[in-house]
Amino acid sequence: MTERAINFGAGPSALPDSVLEEAARGLVNFQGTGIGIAEISHRSKEFTAFVSNLESLIRTQLDVPPTHKILFTQGGGTGQFSAVVLNMLARHRLLHPNLTDEERFMDYVVTGSWSKKAAAEARRLGGGKVNIVAESSHSIPSHDSFKFSSDPALIYYCENETVDGVQFSHEPSSPASFPFHLLPQNTLLPLVADYSSSFMSRKIPRLADHAIIFAGAQKNIGPSGLTIIIVREDCLVDVDAAAKLGAVPVPITMAYKTLADSSSLYNTPSTLPMYMAGLVLERSQELGGVQYFEELNKRKADKVYSVLKEGEAKGIFHGKVKEGSGSWMNITFGVLGEGAEAKFLAGAESRGMKALKGHRSVGGIRVSLYNAITEEQTDQLVAYMREFITENAS
Amino acid sequence: MTERAINFGAGPSALPDSVLEEAARGLVNFQGTGIGIAEISHRSKEFTAFVSNLESLIRTQLDVPPTHKILFTQGGGTGQFSAVVLNMLARHRLLHPNLTDEERFMDYVVTGSWSKKAAAEARRLGGGKVNIVAESSHSIPSHDSFKFSSDPALIYYCENETVDGVQFSHEPSSPASFPFHLLPQNTLLPLVADYSSSFMSRKIPRLADHAIIFAGAQKNIGPSGLTIIIVREDCLVDVDAAAKLGAVPVPITMAYKTLADSSSLYNTPSTLPMYMAGLVLERSQELGGVQYFEELNKRKADKVYSVLKEGEAKGIFHGKVKEGSGSWMNITFGVLGEGAEAKFLAGAESRGMKALKGHRSVGGIRVSLYNAITEEQTDQLVAYMREFITENAS
Repeated sequence: MTERAINFGAGPSALPDSVLEEAARGLVNFQGTGIGIAEISHRSKEFTAFVSNLESLIRTQLDVPPTHKILFTQGGGTGQFSAVVLNMLARHRLLHPNLTDEERFMDYVVTGSWSKKAAAEARRLGGGKVNIVAESSHSIPSHDSFKFSSDPALIYYCENETVDGVQFSHEPSSPASFPFHLLPQNTLLPLVADYSSSFMSRKIPRLADHAIIFAGAQKNIGPSGLTIIIVREDCLVDVDAAAKLGAVPVPITMAYKTLADSSSLYNTPSTLPMYMAGLVLERSQELGGVQYFEELNKRKADKVYSVLKEGEAKGIFHGKVKEGSGSWMNITFGVLGEGAEAKFLAGAESRGMKALKGHRSVGGIRVSLYNAITEEQTDQLVAYMREFITENAS
Repeated sequence: MTERAINFGAGPSALPDSVLEEAARGLVNFQGTGIGIAEISHRSKEFTAFVSNLESLIRTQLDVPPTHKILFTQGGGTGQFSAVVLNMLARHRLLHPNLTDEERFMDYVVTGSWSKKAAAEARRLGGGKVNIVAESSHSIPSHDSFKFSSDPALIYYCENETVDGVQFSHEPSSPASFPFHLLPQNTLLPLVADYSSSFMSRKIPRLADHAIIFAGAQKNIGPSGLTIIIVREDCLVDVDAAAKLGAVPVPITMAYKTLADSSSLYNTPSTLPMYMAGLVLERSQELGGVQYFEELNKRKADKVYSVLKEGEAKGIFHGKVKEGSGSWMNITFGVLGEGAEAKFLAGAESRGMKALKGHRSVGGIRVSLYNAITEEQTDQLVAYMREFITENAS
């Protein structure tokens, strides 16, 4: 395990050393079967037991109620941009078969690149009208700007915007929290949340009120290639019956009911990424679960935001996100002065700290502090940032 | 690498020991970056170079012409059951916007479980009418039974039926070959082939005449979670323009043009399975490419079919597939007599040979002889089968 860099990348991203060591053994021999994890049948008793354990690790740590299934699939968050629309439109069609597409609304909260892309996909697929509930960049929109439809097919938000570094606050009293109190009064809210880049990094507020929560694994819990969906049972609808009523047809691998009816084994899943996610979550459980990571991640983020503020005061750094709306997972900032960003990145690289360059669409610096980044690694970055301030302050 | 079983499973299936050892190192440090392959950005220069090498390993070994793109995605063969229909219906809609769904045909050749499932998915999605061109079980249908439509949106066949053990012969003169000579006369044939369980095990006859060839990786070339698509450029159509003309909307991750325009990096791909497929194909290249495996796989299959015949003559085994239609990859047979199958499996297990049980839908024995199964391992199985015959023949 020598010569490992500190990987602050936004995803695929760092995984714990101990998990990589265990996975290397599993590649050759999975649970003493004499067959490696990438080679074993997804229908073998060993693998199905592993999947059921993976499900329960998530259920226990996030306190997922029995009203909700946990599903595993492929295709990432982008695949779910389509799947949530198709399944929720089918559900709405069965509930309200006579509405026209113009009368069927899909409510989107746009807080950055990913929610914008998700709304664009809903528009592409048709079958309903996209209503932008609220929109802002570099901050969470103020509560009074949210305009929900009265009975939409879905209400969509992205809890953490990986590219922009914007995240909803989990303090209900914060102006940057999600305005749950403004939602339409409905016992079965069609609330959909993209938790891709914060999944398992902290508790999920009002989880039970969500229809669907989805996440790609490649941020906090594993390699890319695995998507996790938490879905309330009333959203496991007969998409074929809905299609007969005029809903957009749903490819079979995207139909939540099909996935649920087969315990996520309708077709061959991505077994190796699932295995590694299981190892990561077993380790999390031993460390104290999501509560442990919530505290750790808050400390890590506080440290970086604090040195960022120092740098801002000295005219060295420029935070990109409004205070209170800043992400714990992805902290975005600029380095002021010509060539200063390249200099900052080169200095980090020479100290073994990698992948700090911001997303190609926005530039700047992005520090991703997913679960596998330790407090010590964060301290090394903070020390370097402080050093950079001192050296460059005039 | 001690205590490795011989894994005759149908997929996910055996991988070469040397690849597993290399992958175990790559998990910790990919190409000296200090970052593991499961942790590195899919947009890093190291990973994109790897993808481009993976593409060229396939292109070279299969002799894919420049008219065809090679794409990588997630979701397996089952995901492609939907994707081929959606993309080819969109293409046909753009070519013939005024046909009704009743006039738009999708031709399916049904030779077993998987092509049957694919046809069912085409029926589910609508937008055209499924025409069963020819159908048979336990054999390839006779050429004179094939009835192609004159200008269908697609013509679909499954080259190797993993569950049933039926495969098209590659000898044009064989009655079990695919009847290319009966296809409609069209320079841009809408021919689609599922090569999931024989991809890279031998050359692909008339590859250039195909519109689409797809395969899951988890048989001959890697772990599950990676799907390969070889697609002719005229099939990279503007699915949104087709949807405006009434075609079924296509989820963005299933639109071939989107995948091609982004060199398979529209969204985060399944990086770890791609990496392992690359290692497998580099090894194949060194061994002599697909030609090497074609010869090896023929020898392996001939040996097993030969002992199967001996067992049939003695009333011990019962081959499930008509001679000439038998697969090189998956050989299916029954063991005659009460409890005989369980006895056969137990004997194999005690000799370190695993996963020989037939698919749960059909029972019996299935021997999968994918590329990673060596001739020596095949010989061990053959020796055991011969021993079993001797011991049980009356």
